[in-house]
Amino acid sequence: MRADRPSVAIVGATGAAGGTLVRVLAERAFPAAELHLYASPRSAGRLVATHLGDLEVRALTEDALRGTDIVFFAAGAATSRRHAPRVAGAGGVAVDKSSAFRMDPTVPLVVPEVNAATLGMHHGIVANPNCVAIPLSIVLAPLDREHGLRHVTVATYQAATGAGRGLAGELEAQARDAAAGAAPTAAVYPHVLVGNVVPGGWTMEGADTEEEVKVVAETRRVLDRADLRMSVTTVRVPVAVGHSAAVWVELDNPVDPDDVRALLATSPGILVVDDPVRQRYPTPRDVAGTDDVQVGRIRRDAGRDNGIALFFSADNLRKGAATNAVQVAELVLARQ
Amino acid sequence: MRADRPSVAIVGATGAAGGTLVRVLAERAFPAAELHLYASPRSAGRLVATHLGDLEVRALTEDALRGTDIVFFAAGAATSRRHAPRVAGAGGVAVDKSSAFRMDPTVPLVVPEVNAATLGMHHGIVANPNCVAIPLSIVLAPLDREHGLRHVTVATYQAATGAGRGLAGELEAQARDAAAGAAPTAAVYPHVLVGNVVPGGWTMEGADTEEEVKVVAETRRVLDRADLRMSVTTVRVPVAVGHSAAVWVELDNPVDPDDVRALLATSPGILVVDDPVRQRYPTPRDVAGTDDVQVGRIRRDAGRDNGIALFFSADNLRKGAATNAVQVAELVLARQ
Repeated sequence: MRADRPSVAIVGATGAAGGTLVRVLAERAFPAAELHLYASPRSAGRLVATHLGDLEVRALTEDALRGTDIVFFAAGAATSRRHAPRVAGAGGVAVDKSSAFRMDPTVPLVVPEVNAATLGMHHGIVANPNCVAIPLSIVLAPLDREHGLRHVTVATYQAATGAGRGLAGELEAQARDAAAGAAPTAAVYPHVLVGNVVPGGWTMEGADTEEEVKVVAETRRVLDRADLRMSVTTVRVPVAVGHSAAVWVELDNPVDPDDVRALLATSPGILVVDDPVRQRYPTPRDVAGTDDVQVGRIRRDAGRDNGIALFFSADNLRKGAATNAVQVAELVLARQ
Repeated sequence: MRADRPSVAIVGATGAAGGTLVRVLAERAFPAAELHLYASPRSAGRLVATHLGDLEVRALTEDALRGTDIVFFAAGAATSRRHAPRVAGAGGVAVDKSSAFRMDPTVPLVVPEVNAATLGMHHGIVANPNCVAIPLSIVLAPLDREHGLRHVTVATYQAATGAGRGLAGELEAQARDAAAGAAPTAAVYPHVLVGNVVPGGWTMEGADTEEEVKVVAETRRVLDRADLRMSVTTVRVPVAVGHSAAVWVELDNPVDPDDVRALLATSPGILVVDDPVRQRYPTPRDVAGTDDVQVGRIRRDAGRDNGIALFFSADNLRKGAATNAVQVAELVLARQ
């Protein structure tokens, strides 16, 4: 691999996360010698503006990725399962945003602010966690390191783009219909999302949503705390961009909320926004377009011994997806 | 008081809860001999359609309520503090939706499905809990009675109408602006609510929102469980009508989720909607306009011993406000 000028490809370049990936690569001046964009045949031929000029999107073929140094996978898990091993086999590195390899013990699951060291074990595939597990891990890691996590409860408020462009477009159309006095309708999603709150929409794994299972398993893996007890409920809200969560943690010892605030304020990837008397706290509207996880409403949880409550928001397309993947790729290059 | 044909007044008749009160009185054919509508001087003169014909809204004066049998207070706490004792002093009953008397030990705080018996102690004022505490108490009461509550965690998803007509109208205007491609603006509320999630907007009491303090204190009082440990985070979402909450409970003993489902399905005021594989669970859009608390996503909380997780939605203007108040008034009449 030419670490100074790698060849780069994005698989799923026309999706919500893939489009953000194109922008984040440009913003961070990622040193790509060349950039190839792949998507489904339906999107082939489309032109996309990148930091290397307007590029044509191509349909992914069996041999397309052979010889590419860094391949970002932002399509479905099936696509990653099929193509990522070929990239690795040919000496490249697959940076995978799908769920395909996240729980594979031979593949590192990396949030650079938390467990960059695990990248050393990679064999050509690096997995990125789910868009809730990434910001959650960033917030929990310093708390676990300094104070010991005993239990974590999470209620999410997740944006439409977390489910891809389909739901995001449907939410926009519903908002237009509702504003015009027409009845909004649902097609790609089981419920009308505008003006609603939906505690589902995911595939179920037993009584839990697939999302709840992922958040628990992936957060434990990133924190290297397989034993961590977690209670998670995932909920979709009518927001375009920005996942939020109400979080309660129980720690090994009593900790002053001011100390938690100070700890998080000096932890990587976190911006503390916490002055609720002046109505300052994280919101998805404020965090959209930024890379930090914003944390606020940090306070004692009077209901629990050693309990702290907080609320966070993070851009699910950036830190929850594209930015994390580009950071991973930067680390991969730095290690060459 | 003429229990068969009482004279009735609504204070705050033009507000979000007051307007719903007019409708619920009609739906339940409340046996009012006469109905008087009061509001701020700004709304005086307006005509409102009621089940006793179109009535003119009048400005509330010092003597207006003298001799009225049942007075519903759906204005601010200051109005209730000033006028409710006069109603009681003149032999009438004030059914108060404000927070003025909720924690007054001489005033019953009543959710008919839970603690109707406490109504016996009233001295002319009956308080109604907050619009989150009402549905929460309805869900928790059977669990506490049958299995013993040890701890409750609640993350709310609260509708704009819970903050009154001002925010509800602002959300509608923001939705129209956003759909038209214009930047939505906030005036009555500290943040743009459309396309957003706001973990604040309430007055703060220390590090907690006033709403969080109310939910904890009032739920404890309704359940008669002053010792109940609770962890609550309140959040506003861009929904017109319908408060929802993700809830986790810890019970005295292990309980099968199927038993919880069966218990709640036979408890008053609850409709279990729980088939997530078929994407059936409570949502505010489904519950708006109805009186039951809808409960779903009932499952084992793997993160806690004896833990159960669930999700509920309830119409904040009906069961969370107007319907509860009318039920209370019906009980008051039945006891005469």
